[in-house]
Order: sequence, then C-alpha cells, then structure tokens
Amino acid sequence: MSKSALVILAQGAEEMETVITVDMLRRGGVTVTVAGLDGSDPVLCSRQITLVPDKSLADALTEKQQYDAVILPGGLEGSDRLSKSSVVGTLLKEHENTGKIVAAICAAPTAFVAHGVAKGKRVTSYPTTKDKITSDYSYVEGERVVVDDNIVTSRGPGTAYWFGLKLIEMLTGKEKADQVEKGMIITGY
Amino acid sequence: MSKSALVILAQGAEEMETVITVDMLRRGGVTVTVAGLDGSDPVLCSRQITLVPDKSLADALTEKQQYDAVILPGGLEGSDRLSKSSVVGTLLKEHENTGKIVAAICAAPTAFVAHGVAKGKRVTSYPTTKDKITSDYSYVEGERVVVDDNIVTSRGPGTAYWFGLKLIEMLTGKEKADQVEKGMIITGY
Repeated sequence: MSKSALVILAQGAEEMETVITVDMLRRGGVTVTVAGLDGSDPVLCSRQITLVPDKSLADALTEKQQYDAVILPGGLEGSDRLSKSSVVGTLLKEHENTGKIVAAICAAPTAFVAHGVAKGKRVTSYPTTKDKITSDYSYVEGERVVVDDNIVTSRGPGTAYWFGLKLIEMLTGKEKADQVEKGMIITGY
Repeated sequence: MSKSALVILAQGAEEMETVITVDMLRRGGVTVTVAGLDGSDPVLCSRQITLVPDKSLADALTEKQQYDAVILPGGLEGSDRLSKSSVVGTLLKEHENTGKIVAAICAAPTAFVAHGVAKGKRVTSYPTTKDKITSDYSYVEGERVVVDDNIVTSRGPGTAYWFGLKLIEMLTGKEKADQVEKGMIITGY
C-alpha cells in the first residue's frame, strides 16, 4: 500500500510551496490528500492563485485518522491560520507522538511553536520568522531542509524542490527521490 | 503601468510549472492573467491538482489583444491541447510578430512547432520531446533557460525557478529578478 500524506491548505497559503510539494510527492508515488482547513471550497492563496482542495480537513480526518506525513505549506497568512486552528494543533501532536512525519516550510514552522509541537528539535524556517521560533527549538540556518527524527522543516519557496525530495526519500526511499529529481530535471539539464 | 503576462492554462498542464511561473511573475510586479484555454471553469492538471483560472482565454483576449508576454506551461496533455488550438496559434504568431515575449517550458515548445512559431530560433524543451522539435529550430541542451530574441524556452518543472527569474528580468529588470530570487531563497539559504 502506498504511503499517505496530508497537506493542509489554508487561505493565504504560499501556492508554489503547496503545489510543488503535492506534485512532487505524487510523482514519488505517495497518496496525497490536499485538505482545505475551512472546508472543501476553492482557496485563495498568497499570490492570488486559487487552488481547489481534494476535500475538507474535517472529511480527511474522518476518513483516515493518521497519515504517514502531515505537511504545512507556508505563506504568512496561511501559517497564521494554521497556528490558530486547534484542530491542526491536535493532529500535529497526534502525528508527532506516533512518530509520523510532521513537516513545515517557510513561515509554517511558526505553527509548531503555536501548538507546542516538535519542542527540542532542530528546525529552520523563513529567515524573517526566525524570531518567532522560541528557545524551545534549536534554530538552524544555512541548510535548505532540516530533518530531526520525524520533524522536517525548510526555508521558503526557493527550497521547496529539496523539501519535496527529502519527503519522498523519507516516505518511499532514496531511489524514488532520485527518479523524481531526474524526471523534473532539477539537475542534469 | 506594470507589464502584463498571459499564462494559458489547459487541462493536463503541469501544475508546478504553471504556479511557479505565475507566482514568481506576480512577486516581480507583473500583472498576470491565468486564462483557461477552454473557459473559466477549474482545470484539472497533470498531477491531479485543480487550479481555477482568472478568466477564460476568450475573455482575456477580448479585454486585451496583446500582452507583454505569452507563456505556455508544459505537461504532455496540456501541451498537446495548446498545440491543437488555432486560437493559441494565432495569438502566438501575433505576439511573436510584434516582438512580445513568447515563452514555453517543458513539453510546451512542441506547440511552437505545431503552430510554426519561433522558426529559426534557438530553443530547448523537456528532453524526451527533443525529437518533436524539427530542423526548423536550433535545439539547445545543457541550459536551464534559452533566450533567442523574444523567444524564451526552458526544460522542465525543475528549471521553472530560473524560467521565472529570466522572464522577470526581461519584463521588469535584473534588480527585480534579484529581489525575487532573494525573497524566495533560491540561493542564500
């Protein structure tokens, strides 16, 4: 059975971080559910692109309580909405506690702080959000993607290719990640 | 007045190529219209992400006959649909003839061949589509983005960051492109 990933889409999410991650994971053979935080209606993202979620977060969690990975795209407004959602807080903690992958990119690691998730871990985030990552965390600069046990964080839209590759590697193996990289022509152009 | 770009969205388009390009150009201050080839309804892309166009291509061309750039995202099915559309053929030729930027990534340069656009130019494309680029063109390998006068081509999803940066540079200048690169953290992580 293929691995599963839940990507939570909030209004104001960074659309390329969302789409790059979902597209790449699907190329990597992962079954990805794009779940709308506030329902199944189309979601207006940070640069005015509208994405249609596969289903509402409520439905996604009714159908399946645990995913192999829960992934938070960035965007300032989107991350703020994820930070304020108690449903997101609960599901992040449940996935962290059972050793599932919990991942966030750009401004979204601030939602970890808001919900008390991944405490004590090495994390990174969008540079201007660094001061929101409290001393409960060990902040890392100079790496595109930071992995500490089951916690995966990345820096911004321009590091999303490598965030996607790392998640594929962790979910379906290095060989598959290398295939996706080759098919996308990140290198070898 | 800001520069304008028309991105034509067909069913089966590669969603990350579409979203990266649109998002980046908007970050670069370009006014981007995402125009649905077959109308304004949501469009199912190559990896099952659904994007909502800003308007139909018909409406986009009624409102404005010429854009500073016309951009074709890739994806095999999407590129095939762009290749078969006489409306796309006409608008590409009109934009080429007036010196506007005409750009395509991944499989989409095959639509240039189908419509007899950009003949005699240096172009690149997704490697497996190389044999569809006829001897009317000078095929380039080993470069992420190829520019020949007003014709811009690129290789795949993994070169889309640099396709976006080159288009921003051509439309709004190198300084703006550098700002966008810095803000996205493509380098300098």
